[in-house]
Amino acid sequence: MRQFVVIGHDAPTDPEFPLDDLPSAAGRLDLLCRCVTSGLFLSHNIRDARVHLVLADEYTITFDGATVRHLNPDERSTAARIRNALAAREDAIGHMPAEPSPGVELRRLGLADTLERIGGALVTLHEDGDPLATADPIADPTFVLSDHRDFTETETALLADQATARLSVGPERLHADHAVTVAHNWLDTDGYTHY
Amino acid sequence: MRQFVVIGHDAPTDPEFPLDDLPSAAGRLDLLCRCVTSGLFLSHNIRDARVHLVLADEYTITFDGATVRHLNPDERSTAARIRNALAAREDAIGHMPAEPSPGVELRRLGLADTLERIGGALVTLHEDGDPLATADPIADPTFVLSDHRDFTETETALLADQATARLSVGPERLHADHAVTVAHNWLDTDGYTHY
Repeated sequence: MRQFVVIGHDAPTDPEFPLDDLPSAAGRLDLLCRCVTSGLFLSHNIRDARVHLVLADEYTITFDGATVRHLNPDERSTAARIRNALAAREDAIGHMPAEPSPGVELRRLGLADTLERIGGALVTLHEDGDPLATADPIADPTFVLSDHRDFTETETALLADQATARLSVGPERLHADHAVTVAHNWLDTDGYTHY
Repeated sequence: MRQFVVIGHDAPTDPEFPLDDLPSAAGRLDLLCRCVTSGLFLSHNIRDARVHLVLADEYTITFDGATVRHLNPDERSTAARIRNALAAREDAIGHMPAEPSPGVELRRLGLADTLERIGGALVTLHEDGDPLATADPIADPTFVLSDHRDFTETETALLADQATARLSVGPERLHADHAVTVAHNWLDTDGYTHY
């Protein structure tokens, strides 16, 4: 299964954010919502994939394509799901998640604990990685991406230690949600060799 | 220059739509807004590209990456730009556009007239086209995509007559905005051969 971990450095950690101002007042939550959509949506179908949003290294919200229900592709309704998950954060105790709706889970875990929990072949997506087109497709990848900010030194060190590959989706620096789309397409097309 | 024409079959033709309900009340305007973002945005930069949204075959709104100012990547603010353009629709007379803000133009043109006006090497993106990975990159392409609905018979006939190629972005059916991202990446990486 394909998994995507998106680090939201400025993301909210409580539900008191406005759905009408996701870019500013909600710390670029618009971008994180688009990552959920690009990670899970096909046209008229949902992928068997998971997207994990790491919010300010404090909480991780997981959207599971296999079990999520009534998810819509627009930013606002996805942000509302995130808000509901944060509203239920008191139910997340130890390793037990809060599950405000089927297929949406919030855990009180930062990046390091989330990576340890979910497993998979860890692949960092970053502009200075090796070109995707020169790499072999990876089974059960867990792609790790950053939001509009670069990885912190701590995150870079963690990923350098744990990731099996560091790949770049192209010569242009893309938004995280666009990088998710390219990574999916790369695997869909078996590494661009044929389909 | 790369251009993208996205056909919005259910898109609004007046500004009386709510920014809080883009998927339903505004005829999947969320998807069209994401097409603008995926067509024009790099991380911390704007592409020299144009995105043309054909609204119900009645108006075409063009976002020009070279001249647009203060564009944000989220759906809501892009939808507000579209609303402003529709509010100025009375200023679009004959071939003269309304230009409610720099780099955003509305013309009283449907699909056929828009394609005739903008030129470029016309490429249809459709699930039953030839695989992108087997095609040669195209100079000055004008990609034409449909929203959540398939092309109508009239549109299919028009494109069959005028398009130089009919390409598929992969074996999975993608949302239009994801197809835009893949097409950009294909050209960024010189047809996936190297970058």
